[in-house]
Amino acid sequence: MNRSEGMNYAPKGKPAPVVGPGEFVIAAVALDHGHIYGMCNGLVEAGSTLKWVYDPDPAKVNAFCHAFPQVRAASSEAVILSDPEVQLVASAAVTNLHCALGLRVLASDKDYFTDKAPLTTLTQLAQARNAVRQSGRKYMVYYAERLHQEAAVFAGQLVEQGAIGRVIQVLGLGPHRLNAASRPDWFFKKSQYGGILCDIGSHQIEQFLYYTGATDATVVRSQVANYNHPDYPELEDFGDAMLVGDNGATQYFRVDWFTPDGLSTWGDGRTFLLGTEGFIEIRKYVNLGTHNGSSDHVFLANQSGEFHYEVAGKVGYPFFGQLIKDCLHRTETAMTQAQAFKAAELCVKAEMQAARIGMDS
Amino acid sequence: MNRSEGMNYAPKGKPAPVVGPGEFVIAAVALDHGHIYGMCNGLVEAGSTLKWVYDPDPAKVNAFCHAFPQVRAASSEAVILSDPEVQLVASAAVTNLHCALGLRVLASDKDYFTDKAPLTTLTQLAQARNAVRQSGRKYMVYYAERLHQEAAVFAGQLVEQGAIGRVIQVLGLGPHRLNAASRPDWFFKKSQYGGILCDIGSHQIEQFLYYTGATDATVVRSQVANYNHPDYPELEDFGDAMLVGDNGATQYFRVDWFTPDGLSTWGDGRTFLLGTEGFIEIRKYVNLGTHNGSSDHVFLANQSGEFHYEVAGKVGYPFFGQLIKDCLHRTETAMTQAQAFKAAELCVKAEMQAARIGMDS
Repeated sequence: MNRSEGMNYAPKGKPAPVVGPGEFVIAAVALDHGHIYGMCNGLVEAGSTLKWVYDPDPAKVNAFCHAFPQVRAASSEAVILSDPEVQLVASAAVTNLHCALGLRVLASDKDYFTDKAPLTTLTQLAQARNAVRQSGRKYMVYYAERLHQEAAVFAGQLVEQGAIGRVIQVLGLGPHRLNAASRPDWFFKKSQYGGILCDIGSHQIEQFLYYTGATDATVVRSQVANYNHPDYPELEDFGDAMLVGDNGATQYFRVDWFTPDGLSTWGDGRTFLLGTEGFIEIRKYVNLGTHNGSSDHVFLANQSGEFHYEVAGKVGYPFFGQLIKDCLHRTETAMTQAQAFKAAELCVKAEMQAARIGMDS
Repeated sequence: MNRSEGMNYAPKGKPAPVVGPGEFVIAAVALDHGHIYGMCNGLVEAGSTLKWVYDPDPAKVNAFCHAFPQVRAASSEAVILSDPEVQLVASAAVTNLHCALGLRVLASDKDYFTDKAPLTTLTQLAQARNAVRQSGRKYMVYYAERLHQEAAVFAGQLVEQGAIGRVIQVLGLGPHRLNAASRPDWFFKKSQYGGILCDIGSHQIEQFLYYTGATDATVVRSQVANYNHPDYPELEDFGDAMLVGDNGATQYFRVDWFTPDGLSTWGDGRTFLLGTEGFIEIRKYVNLGTHNGSSDHVFLANQSGEFHYEVAGKVGYPFFGQLIKDCLHRTETAMTQAQAFKAAELCVKAEMQAARIGMDS
């Protein structure tokens, strides 16, 4: 588990290849966000062959080649999109460009695996849905805070086993460390990063759909603020929202950029799952105040008692192998396309509807 | 710290009398909720002389006299209200009767200290405000989840010291164990208990006002549900709300009756205070999954690091001594009347505005 800041969050797990060398060939295009490392780690550990990388910035390409010595630097995006061996393109472009790149990837008859948020407008969403329909290809999303987080995976297994009955609420806290000096310009431009509810909020909404089984939801309240960063007027340093699912379950989440320097990791991310027969708390990246240094703590209380599971290194990341097999067999076990797009739709809507609050309100 | 269910929550602290025997005489009237024990404990530990008790139910009076051997059973409420020695009447009536009793107490020229929620309708609120204005007496409220909770008191001290900068959000979880079989009938009648946001939500809103310093707020979303108790159709087993304060700070809280039997206490109450310079988490009644048996855990993260404070037995409950002195000196150090009523107003409004959600929605 990488304990550095969220922008370079790139978990390493136990390799569990589902295919042999050359059986599933991937490429990395657009290295604007460090998440590309986690995305490629996950796919390579699951057996993917990482053939190509492309980004217009040679420094980013060099760093990537250093991390993945097996990869070749392509001279253009077109080299990759025209290579018939490449089955999937992974990318972490500037957020508002995720969709345009995805449309090009799908038009090249390859599957697409993008960093979150997968898109930033409803127009892009319509284009993406249309492209998936026409191409039959996948537009999958790296919702890392569940997919690449062993405690979140384990909590899903507990829910599936009925440990807390029916899940009636998902409550998520997604604080992040800002590290403003290390961020690129686009990070502070709302038209590019999409707003806080769209950006880091997308993780939260995907988790709501996953843990409750809701297939649709209504954003009943959302709000954003810039409480304390006047130097970055387009930054939203706080956002929160309430959603009600089509199955009656509900969600609250808060995201923010207020992780203090003294915290031992980039954010004290939490998820609380309230069920009819018990509840689960996930302390994703740190067990606050214990200084035990490990991530991935899951707490369960139900009829049988209180339980604490430390699952770092014990659960793995089944998403990546499932995604590879989904691409090979045209199935939807890792995540349905509908769920990936629904989370995207709801986070864009949450952002569009958001009331602006703050100390000046 | 009493580890039994919330309905009998009656913390005992270090006695810290602010007055001598006979200097501040109180009486207990209406013992419908076990909170009356905590209320009287707190006042007696702070030096009050508990002179009288009255309730129409002799069994309740007997139990109370057993707990407080110094008290005398009065033959009627009138005996108490006409006793010029009595300076304050504490009571835990059925919730929708809190106000009527308060009006009688104030009309008798005594201060009133009621269990939460202090009232259940805006009409009652207008009557209560009017009675306070006319009598000059206090209509104070036992918002126990802060006032009688050392971790919550300690967190307030940290905030006051500037440990987390300006508080921008208060997020509260107030789960409670239902114990349906042990509850009186009125507990399941909405017109009597007032609804979940009014009842146990009132604690939450008072904390928001206190920790952020907001003097008013808008309920921007509230919702209630009966997810899993069809045998009690008027019970709301879930409620949550978002408020925005007049100073721009915001609140989210959830209250519910889903504490599972296996939890070691009646509810895993939490409060998260998000500040511009750090955050605080209060684990009020249990440090989940640690089996350490103690309540009152406060966690702080700020520029200086991560800290865990175990404060049970170390902080005390300054509210009660302050309240006694406020009554004697006609000051407002324990809590302003405005804050007590504002929390009441907002919890009634949250309840009135609440959308009904649930598995049938």
